[in-house]
Amino acid sequence: MITETEAVKRIKPEQVDQILHPMIDPDAKVEVIARGLPASPGAAVGKIVFTADRAEELAANGEKVILVRTETSPDDIGGMNAAEGILTARGGMTSHAAVVARGMGKCCVAGCGEITIDEAEKKMTIGDLLFHEGDYITLDGSKGEVMKGSVKLIDSGVGGEVGELLRWADDIRRLGVRTNADTPHDAGIARDFGAEGIGLCRTEHMFFGEERIPIVQEMILAESEEERMIPLAKLLEFQREDFKGIFKEMRGLPVTIRLLDPPLHEFLPKKEELIEKINALRSKAKLSKDEESELEKLEEIMSRVEKLHEFNPMLGHRGCRLGITYPEIYNMQAHAIIEAAAELMKEGETITPEIMIPLVGELNELKVTKRNVIETAEKVMREKGVKLNYLIGTMIELPRAAITADEIAGEAEFFSFGTNDLTQTTFGFSRDDAGKFLQEYIEKGILPHDPFVTLDKRGVGELMKIAIEKGRKTNPDIKLGICGEHGGDPESIKFADEIGLDYVSCSPYRVPVARIAAAHATLAQRESEDRGL
Amino acid sequence: MITETEAVKRIKPEQVDQILHPMIDPDAKVEVIARGLPASPGAAVGKIVFTADRAEELAANGEKVILVRTETSPDDIGGMNAAEGILTARGGMTSHAAVVARGMGKCCVAGCGEITIDEAEKKMTIGDLLFHEGDYITLDGSKGEVMKGSVKLIDSGVGGEVGELLRWADDIRRLGVRTNADTPHDAGIARDFGAEGIGLCRTEHMFFGEERIPIVQEMILAESEEERMIPLAKLLEFQREDFKGIFKEMRGLPVTIRLLDPPLHEFLPKKEELIEKINALRSKAKLSKDEESELEKLEEIMSRVEKLHEFNPMLGHRGCRLGITYPEIYNMQAHAIIEAAAELMKEGETITPEIMIPLVGELNELKVTKRNVIETAEKVMREKGVKLNYLIGTMIELPRAAITADEIAGEAEFFSFGTNDLTQTTFGFSRDDAGKFLQEYIEKGILPHDPFVTLDKRGVGELMKIAIEKGRKTNPDIKLGICGEHGGDPESIKFADEIGLDYVSCSPYRVPVARIAAAHATLAQRESEDRGL
Repeated sequence: MITETEAVKRIKPEQVDQILHPMIDPDAKVEVIARGLPASPGAAVGKIVFTADRAEELAANGEKVILVRTETSPDDIGGMNAAEGILTARGGMTSHAAVVARGMGKCCVAGCGEITIDEAEKKMTIGDLLFHEGDYITLDGSKGEVMKGSVKLIDSGVGGEVGELLRWADDIRRLGVRTNADTPHDAGIARDFGAEGIGLCRTEHMFFGEERIPIVQEMILAESEEERMIPLAKLLEFQREDFKGIFKEMRGLPVTIRLLDPPLHEFLPKKEELIEKINALRSKAKLSKDEESELEKLEEIMSRVEKLHEFNPMLGHRGCRLGITYPEIYNMQAHAIIEAAAELMKEGETITPEIMIPLVGELNELKVTKRNVIETAEKVMREKGVKLNYLIGTMIELPRAAITADEIAGEAEFFSFGTNDLTQTTFGFSRDDAGKFLQEYIEKGILPHDPFVTLDKRGVGELMKIAIEKGRKTNPDIKLGICGEHGGDPESIKFADEIGLDYVSCSPYRVPVARIAAAHATLAQRESEDRGL
Repeated sequence: MITETEAVKRIKPEQVDQILHPMIDPDAKVEVIARGLPASPGAAVGKIVFTADRAEELAANGEKVILVRTETSPDDIGGMNAAEGILTARGGMTSHAAVVARGMGKCCVAGCGEITIDEAEKKMTIGDLLFHEGDYITLDGSKGEVMKGSVKLIDSGVGGEVGELLRWADDIRRLGVRTNADTPHDAGIARDFGAEGIGLCRTEHMFFGEERIPIVQEMILAESEEERMIPLAKLLEFQREDFKGIFKEMRGLPVTIRLLDPPLHEFLPKKEELIEKINALRSKAKLSKDEESELEKLEEIMSRVEKLHEFNPMLGHRGCRLGITYPEIYNMQAHAIIEAAAELMKEGETITPEIMIPLVGELNELKVTKRNVIETAEKVMREKGVKLNYLIGTMIELPRAAITADEIAGEAEFFSFGTNDLTQTTFGFSRDDAGKFLQEYIEKGILPHDPFVTLDKRGVGELMKIAIEKGRKTNPDIKLGICGEHGGDPESIKFADEIGLDYVSCSPYRVPVARIAAAHATLAQRESEDRGL
């Protein structure tokens, strides 16, 4: 017989992660035909498809599919969601496919260089083996293996013993565990896994939906604020329902909503794609009326794409910079948040939304955007005849925000460390590009690990400590959390505990891992206290 | 009669800058036809040309030309150098045209939105006025004005009274003044203006020369280190002569040489350009042997361009990251530096090169590159039979370098603050893209000024202070300087003096400004001491 504490101590966080996903039946005979990176754990069986659209199509018919791509992009989200698992030929542990799959709790084998994909011909080859669309393969995302045919899987779940272990861990840990979730569906999964709130709800994902993207594009193409108000009014309806769905699912737990963050060009089609379509239309001998107006539209979008082009979009016109240039966008979002909360309040629920301003680097940015949000919130509450509490806070994801945290904390009710971006700017590493040299850096011992997976304590962590110390000096009660990938990494969670954060926030499927890792952090802390350290 | 100190105090640094450039004759009758940004001071008269090549062609024939472009890119350097002045339709005070023009001491009016350029037809319009190639215009870069025709200019110079004033300033100031110079020509100008050394010699500019760029491309296309050694051996010859020329010009004054910094794709043609050429060849019915091999070559370059493509080149595979992936490049450069110094030493000169490793963010990066540089240096000295002193230091241009400066200082003999890049990463602003919102930020009072022009003391400056304090803790004798645009800005120079840097380094034409500004900084310091502050 061991104590509860001892039981929690003995389980490794990664073991919990394994347990929570379907696995290959240990008795099954398998034929491993290729190996890639174990990008997202679990196993999956399905028919090969080569495009996101096709994945959605077949999945809608109840078929299980594996999406096979050279690499994935935000356009593939729908298909990734529809697929059982994802296999990519290119990309590392922090590639789009890997990050999104982990977020979805979906099995993924990434960077499998042995496969050659011919999307046009709908086939792929691995060595001598040829596969067509519809052929079955099996993935083991925990090991990075690709297997031929349909292998038997066995299920797992948080029930029974694991559930008990997690509750013991909850009794031990000091650190709160929230989740990053953008939909009621994800929020629900995270709650079932024990999330105590949402630490990051990214509103941009809500803009990518099929019905919405044309409205978003209309908003971007608008020439004036007045013209922009029309699509914004439509988006308001969608957003309000989004937020209501999420608030309902979280039943009174705190929900932190981040206002629009990515640069606007992410919502427009890619240049290459536009050129192709425009050229196809232009090369026609005669255009119908419809084609003519389509061409005109495409040319308009093209000109906007060119205007919005950025050399370094990561360091460009995004985050609160958008909220300052186009206050009407943030106002619409604040409106939707407060209205959703107000309507639920009338239904008897108590919601305290936490509105988060992204990419603040200078106090005045927060002041200006905050003032607008408050004005909108007050107006909506007056209209609805309700009074509700809400918090306004900011991401700390730029070195300048950390360095000037004492100023910023005067206007913020919470800080959430956006450690993905903070790692990018502190190191001067683009997450999308660093794959080219990061692997070599780790092999040569220049860095001990990928700083996008495990938090860099000496650099990024030091900036976080500066921000915490300065922030608490001005605002001793400020609530502190971490969102971003590190919130689900055990070593980073230990560090978050050590530097005194209030909570970590991670993707739904990492919540159980984080609960165990947070308990371990407390236990380690107690042990070093016991040793008089 | 006023004292020397009083005289120095009364002159504004910007007045010195004005005095040093040709000006519009105050008695001339002028017709201002458009206004843009006063991007680089002075005045210029010349014939309009629309391409860099044409500028070089006409200038070679002794004609004075004004280069008119929508915006400039590194490909235009030759033409910008050949022109009397530069006029651009797009871009801000930190656009390529503006920065390069200031560096060249060349008059520039940037972001003049009123002009419309038709490069193909070789004409431009300003309102109702139509100009063709060869028509005369006059620019006033101090005021941002464009004038019709050829206006009379009057000359200026550092002689006489100004020279005396500058010498008085030298007696007062504590801060050293160096220059950013990449050629013997620029080094000579800077010396004449009183530079006490070179603080930043950018070696990449040496790679862009017409004879060299094909060799650089050969180096980039090489498939192996072995293959890469052939073009590197050719580049070595060029680089050695480059460095000899610069060392000679600086006659024993310190010269800081930065090893290769930009990502390799900057040395390859642009994708659009390649596609056009490839398509032109492919669409031919029959290709000659030469055309066939040209097509093959172009396709090879294209595939490399695609491989090297980066989403955020600013945060990509550049700086010491290149030196780690391709140590042979940095070794070639170290070889050329030491060999050049050794050969001059045999001629009786004493040179102490300062070798600077760019974009270090982690101690191990400096350790690895430094070890290679030392090995190369020792080998060259043995071969040449000489022993010379050289320093190895690093740029501090990433937040992580500032935060871990205590570690880095253990391996560095000097720090040079690369405040351009440090501003980019601290704020998360891309200098190439921030124009889209920075102007608005300043107008709305969110930022007091453009942080790329005047150093941001509260954020970037705070990181510099952290770096200085930590750096000196490990290495009390470490030499500290600043290169980057801020080194020529009076307010930033004052700050550099306050935080105890040893020198500032600025473009040759800013040297006199910096001498005055540095003297003002000392005087301000004395005054506050006198007031007991």
